[in-house]
Amino acid sequence: MDAQEYFDTTPAPQGVEDVAQRVREFVEHNQRLSRRVVLVSSGGTTVPLEANTVRFLDNFSAGTRGAASAEHFIASGYGVIFLHRQFSLEPYTRHFTHSKNCFLDFLERDAAAHERAADGGAASSGSSAGHDARPRRGSLRVAERLQAEIAEVFDKYQAARAEHRLLKIDFVTVHDYLFLLRRITMEMSPLGKLGMYYLAAAVSDYFIPQAKMAVHKIQSGDGALTLSLEQVPKIIKPLVQEWAEHGFIVSFKLETDDAMLLPKARKALERYGHQLVIGNMLHTRKHVVHFISADRAEEIRLTPDEVAANFEIETHIISRLVGLHSEWIARE
Amino acid sequence: MDAQEYFDTTPAPQGVEDVAQRVREFVEHNQRLSRRVVLVSSGGTTVPLEANTVRFLDNFSAGTRGAASAEHFIASGYGVIFLHRQFSLEPYTRHFTHSKNCFLDFLERDAAAHERAADGGAASSGSSAGHDARPRRGSLRVAERLQAEIAEVFDKYQAARAEHRLLKIDFVTVHDYLFLLRRITMEMSPLGKLGMYYLAAAVSDYFIPQAKMAVHKIQSGDGALTLSLEQVPKIIKPLVQEWAEHGFIVSFKLETDDAMLLPKARKALERYGHQLVIGNMLHTRKHVVHFISADRAEEIRLTPDEVAANFEIETHIISRLVGLHSEWIARE
Repeated sequence: MDAQEYFDTTPAPQGVEDVAQRVREFVEHNQRLSRRVVLVSSGGTTVPLEANTVRFLDNFSAGTRGAASAEHFIASGYGVIFLHRQFSLEPYTRHFTHSKNCFLDFLERDAAAHERAADGGAASSGSSAGHDARPRRGSLRVAERLQAEIAEVFDKYQAARAEHRLLKIDFVTVHDYLFLLRRITMEMSPLGKLGMYYLAAAVSDYFIPQAKMAVHKIQSGDGALTLSLEQVPKIIKPLVQEWAEHGFIVSFKLETDDAMLLPKARKALERYGHQLVIGNMLHTRKHVVHFISADRAEEIRLTPDEVAANFEIETHIISRLVGLHSEWIARE
Repeated sequence: MDAQEYFDTTPAPQGVEDVAQRVREFVEHNQRLSRRVVLVSSGGTTVPLEANTVRFLDNFSAGTRGAASAEHFIASGYGVIFLHRQFSLEPYTRHFTHSKNCFLDFLERDAAAHERAADGGAASSGSSAGHDARPRRGSLRVAERLQAEIAEVFDKYQAARAEHRLLKIDFVTVHDYLFLLRRITMEMSPLGKLGMYYLAAAVSDYFIPQAKMAVHKIQSGDGALTLSLEQVPKIIKPLVQEWAEHGFIVSFKLETDDAMLLPKARKALERYGHQLVIGNMLHTRKHVVHFISADRAEEIRLTPDEVAANFEIETHIISRLVGLHSEWIARE
C-alpha cells in the first residue's frame, strides 16, 4: 500500500484541522521574526489490533532523543513544533518526569510562611507548641534542595512559552501520526528552506489496515494467536517529494545489529532523496550516532569525560545540524 | 504452557529478590499494626517481540482504575502494595499527571518573597522599576490558584508515606509482572485472610516464549509480518491454589462485547475458584461494574448526579469490597 492509497482508505482521526490551524499561526509568527522552524517528531506510535482497541503494538521509545533535541533547537534560536507521543518525555519537564520521584516529592510546606503567619497572631487550631507531627500549614513550595535545579529549567520553559518558540502536538496511534505529519508539513511548506524536519519518532513499520481489523477484543482461550500485519506506507517519500520539497529533512535509523546500519541508511537516502540519515544502535544511542548523507558519513561520539559528566549528545547533534541547515539555506 | 513450565523456561528478570525484601518489611510492619494489606495490580503489560526489544505488544490501560482504587484502599485503612506499569497513573499524583499541563505549569515565582527581599535591601541586578518582562527572582512555589487543590492531595500523600501505607513497585513486561506477582504473593501469604489481591492490571493474554523470540529487530522491507503468539499461562490458578490460598482474591474482566461479560466471568470463577470477578465494559467502565461471585451478581452503577459530579466509582467499589473482605475474614 502506498501513501496515497493509505490516506484514501483510512478514516482521518479527529482534530487534524484544529492542529493545522495552530501550526499555521505558529509558522506565521515565526516567519515574521525570520526564525527557522523545525518539526521534531518524538516517541513511539501504537498500532491498534482491534477497532475497539484493547490491544496494540508499540515501539520502544520514551522520547528521550526528541525531547532533548527540541530543547536544544530552542536554545539555538529555532521555533519547534514538537509532535510527540502522548505522555512521552517533553522538553523541560523531561528533567523531572519519568523518574522514580513524583512531582509531589518536589514540594514542601513553606515553614517560614507558616511562622510568619503565626507571628502575626493568626494562630492555627489550638495545638500546643513543641513536637507536632502534622504537616505544617504553610503554602506549598518547591523544596529548598531543588529550588535552583527546577528554577533553571522553569525559566527556560517560561521564556520558550513567552517567545512562542514551542508548539506541542500529541499523537497516540500510527494513524494519528501519519495524518498529522502530512497536515503539519503542508502548513510548514511556506517556510521553504527555513524549515527543518527532524523525524526522531519511532514509527511502526507494520499495521493492520482498517478493513482487516477485528471489531471487538480478540478472544483468548482459543489457543495461539496469529497476527498478520502489513507494511506502513513510507511517508517520507511524499514528504520529500511533495509536502516539504524545499525543507531540510533528517530521518533516523535505529538498529540492534551493527552490520545493518550503514547499508540501510544509504538505501533510505537513495530511495527517498532526502538530506540526512542519523543512524544509531539501540544500546549505544546515547553516546554515539552516525550522520550519513549522500556524499559522506561522519560519527558523533561523546568523549569518556562527557559520558562521565552525563553530557547530552543532542547538544552536539543539534549544533552540527544547525550548521548543515545553514549550508542548505545558503545553497542556490 | 502452564505456569510451572513458564517459570521453568523463562529467565527471571532482575531485581525480584530486592522487591521481595521490601514487600517482606512492608507486610511485617502492617502485621504489627494488625492492618489489612491489599495488593493492587495496575496498568498494562508489554510483550516483547524481540530479545533486543524495539517492538512490543501492549494493552490499553492508563492505570486509572488501579491508581484510584489504591488511594481509596488507603483511605479505608489498608496498607497497599501498588504493583504498576512503569509511568502509569499512581495514587495521589494521578490527579495532576497525564494531563495536558505539565508540572512546570503548576509553579510560579513567589512575587511576595521577591518583594520582601527587595524591601530588605537585597536589591537584585540593577534593572529599573516599571515594566519588566523577565521572570521574577522569587523562589518557586505552587501557583496560588492551585494551592488548595494540590495541598489537599499533598497532605494525603504525605500521610500515606509517613504511615507506611503505600509500597510502589513497577513493571514493564508481562515477564516482570508474572515473576513479581508470584514472589509478592508468596511474601504476602503470612497475612492469611487479612490479605486481599485486587488484580486490576491489564495482563496480556498472549506472548512469545523466550525460545521463539527474534534476537534482533525484526527487519521491515520484507513485505508482510506474521506474528505467532502463545497464550500467557493463567497465573491466577497457582495464585488461588498455592500462593495466596487464604487471601481474598478479586480478578477483573474487561470486554467490549456485552454478551461475553457474564459467561466469561462465571467461567473464570469455576475454573480458578477465587472469590470475585469484577466485570466491566471498555466504554462504560467508569460508570458501571458488575460484582460476580459464585452465588450472586450485583451491579454497581453511578447515579446520573454522580456522573455529572465526576464522582469516582472506585469509592463505591472499594467500600463494597471492604465489606466483603470483612465477611471473608469472619468466616470460619
